[in-house]
Amino acid sequence: MRNSTRGEVDPFIVMDVMEAARAAEDAGRHIIHMEVGQPGTPAPAAARDALARAMQSEPLGYTVALGLPALRQRIARLYGEWYGVDLDPARVVVTPGSSGGFILAFTTLFDAGDRVGIGAPGYPSYRQILRALDLTPVMIETSAENRLQPVAADLEGLDLQGLMVASPANPSGTMLDRSALAALMEGAQAQGAAFISDEIYHGIEYEAKAVTALEISDEAYVINSFSKYFSMTGWRVGWMVVPPDHVRRVERLAQNLFICPPHASQVAALAAMDATDELEANMAVYRRNRQLMLDGLPRAGFDRIAPPDGAFYVYADVSHLTDDSRAFCTEILEKAGVAVTPGLDFDPARGHGTLRFSYARSTADIEEGLARLERFMKETGRL
Amino acid sequence: MRNSTRGEVDPFIVMDVMEAARAAEDAGRHIIHMEVGQPGTPAPAAARDALARAMQSEPLGYTVALGLPALRQRIARLYGEWYGVDLDPARVVVTPGSSGGFILAFTTLFDAGDRVGIGAPGYPSYRQILRALDLTPVMIETSAENRLQPVAADLEGLDLQGLMVASPANPSGTMLDRSALAALMEGAQAQGAAFISDEIYHGIEYEAKAVTALEISDEAYVINSFSKYFSMTGWRVGWMVVPPDHVRRVERLAQNLFICPPHASQVAALAAMDATDELEANMAVYRRNRQLMLDGLPRAGFDRIAPPDGAFYVYADVSHLTDDSRAFCTEILEKAGVAVTPGLDFDPARGHGTLRFSYARSTADIEEGLARLERFMKETGRL
Repeated sequence: MRNSTRGEVDPFIVMDVMEAARAAEDAGRHIIHMEVGQPGTPAPAAARDALARAMQSEPLGYTVALGLPALRQRIARLYGEWYGVDLDPARVVVTPGSSGGFILAFTTLFDAGDRVGIGAPGYPSYRQILRALDLTPVMIETSAENRLQPVAADLEGLDLQGLMVASPANPSGTMLDRSALAALMEGAQAQGAAFISDEIYHGIEYEAKAVTALEISDEAYVINSFSKYFSMTGWRVGWMVVPPDHVRRVERLAQNLFICPPHASQVAALAAMDATDELEANMAVYRRNRQLMLDGLPRAGFDRIAPPDGAFYVYADVSHLTDDSRAFCTEILEKAGVAVTPGLDFDPARGHGTLRFSYARSTADIEEGLARLERFMKETGRL
Repeated sequence: MRNSTRGEVDPFIVMDVMEAARAAEDAGRHIIHMEVGQPGTPAPAAARDALARAMQSEPLGYTVALGLPALRQRIARLYGEWYGVDLDPARVVVTPGSSGGFILAFTTLFDAGDRVGIGAPGYPSYRQILRALDLTPVMIETSAENRLQPVAADLEGLDLQGLMVASPANPSGTMLDRSALAALMEGAQAQGAAFISDEIYHGIEYEAKAVTALEISDEAYVINSFSKYFSMTGWRVGWMVVPPDHVRRVERLAQNLFICPPHASQVAALAAMDATDELEANMAVYRRNRQLMLDGLPRAGFDRIAPPDGAFYVYADVSHLTDDSRAFCTEILEKAGVAVTPGLDFDPARGHGTLRFSYARSTADIEEGLARLERFMKETGRL
């Protein structure tokens, strides 16, 4: 049977790591998971309680395409609480995860062949979703001097129809401050490119509060999710904020593409937004884990790292240790019993010399993982 | 800010009906809902119980992209139970609703500009999703003689890269028997077109068992959902069966486009599959409602109808009563207090002379709705 060209997307290399880790566990080994991109915690108890109650009293059929009105209102209120931004709930679109937000944003904004700039390193699915929608991802190679974020000067001559940035970023955890973000938004506007701000890691930040694109201008698509700070990855619910004159277009597309986001997940998400104590307890763990990583990774020989501003990853330059990050990860898994992600998923051109370490799991796991890494590096003569 | 061309999808006209119905209810009127395309029943109790338990014991994070292995196995077993087909669970892809199945199938199979044949009347989102993915929907005008289903002869000269059929169909409820389905599959293959079988209404059938494309050939994409027979619309979980050599491609796309279907919904869906008593009780209601419709609609003057083989709709030719189905629906809502759907969503070219009546709600509602329709037709001098 026939195939499409656009369906030819790259495999996730991290999936091979996860498969190898699972095989090792099946064989009885104990593995520390520093490869995963999700919290080990469940949805907040209040979220689960709210859903348990709703399941007894409501049919939980389709919601309207833009999402439960109460949830849209609560999300709008969050922009007041977090950023001091007064946001009209009518501009909030609840989506089936940030994944649904990307599909919706890209189809609303771009036609086949359009060029969309994304930073490298970056979340691998950006470029794969763009390709699957017959769009052209334009990789912007970021530099360590710019803390692995694109800068306005990078946009010159790229002839973009769209620009997407992430702050805090995956895999680096670095953030764009207000002036850097504003410069990128201006640079995009100057070439008529739509601006998309991926803010999925907002809320998980350590030194300064992340800046939303909405503090700067209404002329942006902002994509966010309940997956990370709200600890609801598997629930597949996120949101998008769009310019006022885009709401109807997005609504029509959402009706057809998704019908609605999962109703049960919307009910849970609404309650999660007020589970501040539990969410801040999660944050205290990330904060502790981050400090352990910043102390422990250099001690283990991974000293080319920048302190992450947010998210729960450390991206390490290991080009002095290997020119084959994939083989290096295999060796670390085998000899140290620690699963980590090779940089190739995030940066096909330069990721052979980088690794991503996640510290989303328990503090005990992080301590054990760091000890194993240090032992491994010593035993293999690298330290 | 810029817009895409492909994002220019038609509005759902039924949404205007639903909005008007809601406004009437807000103004204190009692409205009978024959416009809705979903069961009034919740997910089976066993499904909700299973999720309530899982929420206490599991984090419900991401699942693998193809879905929970136990659910894929249980779905494969359904093909043995329902059709006597021996299906390898490895070919089952759990999706975020049949909507997710369409997006995944279309991106796996087709490139920008490819032509995909769909029957008119048909589910409106087919053509809108195709357009949003820069594909070309090719409308196949079906005839009453062929019970509003495409036939193999319709395919000649269409130069299709894909053909999608639905049996039972929405809005007509008619089914393709084994030979009609086989002829369409052969016709598609003869022009190198991929074949997609939308089987979302399987299980809701009245006279004969619906035939799955998998009884005829493995060279098809089969799309199904937990929304209808399993009464789980708002949960956004469905599935797809693909040819063995397509699984890896589909998996990679699913990883990037969706990460995974909602975990909570997958847990509920697995338990729903064994809730036979409750699901068959729902079926008994549909069966009773269908008979009421087949008796009551002609009595109310809507006598140009075909008995539906499946689903929970009756599609009526009202071209002797109006040439503006939209205005007619507005009048019916206003004067009779019954919400029905104009045919324009399903058949832009000919739907000005058709209506869709849904009988998915309670029997009491159907009885009251039919009585109102008859009274309305008499009082307006049409009967």
